[in-house]
Amino acid sequence: MTFSFAIENTDGRARRGVFTTPHGAVETPMFMPVGTLATVKALDPDDLTAAGAQMILANAYHLHLRPGDDLVRDLGGLHRFMHWDRPILTDSGGFQVFSLATLRTVSEDGVEFRSHVDGSLHVFTPESVMAIEQNLGADVIMQFDHVIPGQSDETAARDASERSIRWLARCVSAREALPPIDGRPPQALFPIVQGGIHEHLRVEAVRAIAGMGDWVGFGIGGLSVGEAKPDMYRILESVDDALPANRPRYLMGVGFPEDLVEGVARGVDLFDCVAPTRMGRNGTVFTPDGRVNIKRAEFRRSDAPIDPSCNCGACARFSRAYLRHLFVTDEILGLRLLSLHNVHFLVRLMRGAREAIRAGTFASWRRDWTERYHSRTSTTA
Amino acid sequence: MTFSFAIENTDGRARRGVFTTPHGAVETPMFMPVGTLATVKALDPDDLTAAGAQMILANAYHLHLRPGDDLVRDLGGLHRFMHWDRPILTDSGGFQVFSLATLRTVSEDGVEFRSHVDGSLHVFTPESVMAIEQNLGADVIMQFDHVIPGQSDETAARDASERSIRWLARCVSAREALPPIDGRPPQALFPIVQGGIHEHLRVEAVRAIAGMGDWVGFGIGGLSVGEAKPDMYRILESVDDALPANRPRYLMGVGFPEDLVEGVARGVDLFDCVAPTRMGRNGTVFTPDGRVNIKRAEFRRSDAPIDPSCNCGACARFSRAYLRHLFVTDEILGLRLLSLHNVHFLVRLMRGAREAIRAGTFASWRRDWTERYHSRTSTTA
Repeated sequence: MTFSFAIENTDGRARRGVFTTPHGAVETPMFMPVGTLATVKALDPDDLTAAGAQMILANAYHLHLRPGDDLVRDLGGLHRFMHWDRPILTDSGGFQVFSLATLRTVSEDGVEFRSHVDGSLHVFTPESVMAIEQNLGADVIMQFDHVIPGQSDETAARDASERSIRWLARCVSAREALPPIDGRPPQALFPIVQGGIHEHLRVEAVRAIAGMGDWVGFGIGGLSVGEAKPDMYRILESVDDALPANRPRYLMGVGFPEDLVEGVARGVDLFDCVAPTRMGRNGTVFTPDGRVNIKRAEFRRSDAPIDPSCNCGACARFSRAYLRHLFVTDEILGLRLLSLHNVHFLVRLMRGAREAIRAGTFASWRRDWTERYHSRTSTTA
Repeated sequence: MTFSFAIENTDGRARRGVFTTPHGAVETPMFMPVGTLATVKALDPDDLTAAGAQMILANAYHLHLRPGDDLVRDLGGLHRFMHWDRPILTDSGGFQVFSLATLRTVSEDGVEFRSHVDGSLHVFTPESVMAIEQNLGADVIMQFDHVIPGQSDETAARDASERSIRWLARCVSAREALPPIDGRPPQALFPIVQGGIHEHLRVEAVRAIAGMGDWVGFGIGGLSVGEAKPDMYRILESVDDALPANRPRYLMGVGFPEDLVEGVARGVDLFDCVAPTRMGRNGTVFTPDGRVNIKRAEFRRSDAPIDPSCNCGACARFSRAYLRHLFVTDEILGLRLLSLHNVHFLVRLMRGAREAIRAGTFASWRRDWTERYHSRTSTTA
């Protein structure tokens, strides 16, 4: 089997495992940096390797619009195009169609929308998205789904979840009908569990999806989209109970350090979020003591690194004073160094979680980490 | 002697040598990337090392304004601040005061000006600039000089040149009066030969300066500031004839690839220019066949690197199509990769010049290089 998932330790709901793909193995729990447009913003592929990133994400919606998935296909697929030879996952564009694009018309067939780049008219259907994701050539491809706001009522949530499941069936058929691309390794289609903040809808979705096949892994969608944190945690627990234990679970679009720790505590294996790079570009860094904005006046003459315990390319070489100077003067190197630190921070956080799970000390590790992260009275970022 | 210059080969006016500083040796002719604000824009110090850069430039005017030269001093000097342990040269701010700042008042004492950043009032004198450059701690520091437009008439050029020479004497006295900073290696003060496009003024300036001491090296200023190329070449030849042969000559603010080749042909050893990084950020790359803008439509599907003969981090890994995509989508990685390529190009160009000088084939190397660089009928950049 080209794809496999081996759970090596569990500790409560938390799991430590290895997810194997045609482009190599990923230790879970793992954070995947987001390379929306086939580049993790401000970073080089070598930076990602140095940070310990093992798998990254790219986005079908964005790459379909620019440079075009056909172009990426003709140039050998995403791995070659962006010079990243480890695993890649592509989001299906469901989230972007519902959040970025304008003038959407949703029908059972799919979604008609206008590009956020140039206003041009496009239609995404399960069939067209499967073709796009095949062209891009990621290891894991997500189904096209109907994404709704986090606080949607049950009727809207049920409607979107059931449509997503019907679209999943069409994704499967579409893939079977697509002629293969020569020389390309197999791809794994992940279904996406929807259902908003309604536990029974989530459980129904899991049952329906699980009944449709033996999936390589599962996406958990529609969380961290405006709902309260307790709602997210509650839903994660019910989904954890319902999903088959022996497949990786990917919590889409999550998240911040505390979200990752809480997700791991509820059986999540894979995460992605633009937060580390977006916040890095805004001058905000994650530290074990919480978030900090590098532009703080108190850092003006600070000879210390962002985080003395960190060995990333920013902390190992540069003072807060230098990084602050780069931000105050709008120097590009600052964007890269802070993005690098934040990605490194999340990758390292998940390494810590894996070690705690292996040692059977995840509960105390989680408690200690959380207490320290939230202990500081003043976080300005 | 902490500083030394050994000429290993000459070929016509061209010289191949080694300029030794407290932070190591520099093979000449050499191009120095410009790190105006203690960062070569869009690049990491590791990128510069990988590109083969041996010495870089930073700017006293900019660093005095932000973050403040006193802050850089307190944090251990420029080398430590920006994590660059090879030689650094600081420009004195003369050029910036006359080009960037507003509301200048020039007197024999110095120049009063308003900061281009916040409009605050500052005064640069030979004495204050020597203190600033000591605080920054570069290996080579340039004298404070009076810079005039390239086409200035003889009266203005003479006035500025003679003032620059009087300011040079004050720079020397000021340095003697400055208390040393503990733990800092010695710095070499380079005088700057001015005189506009008037050969006899240039020769007079060289004689006056050479009569003032045994300088470690010489700056040649006030060129590439609007004058015609033949004027620059003519002046370089007269300065080459007048300067002592056994000291390195640094042609300030020059330049483009063709300017470097012509400068080497006229006895120049060191060059600096923001062109490679500025043009890189604008999407323009140097190639052996001339300049090219990466955004050209013809590159949309090009699987070839910018320059197949180049082994920089852009050319060794990425296609023109990918680099074009990064620029079309305003991705930061594109700024870095093209800056990296252009710096690599100029460093490699000077390596080619050194090898030709050593082999005694500089004349034919220069002719072949120039013919190819200018051969393409359509350069869009």
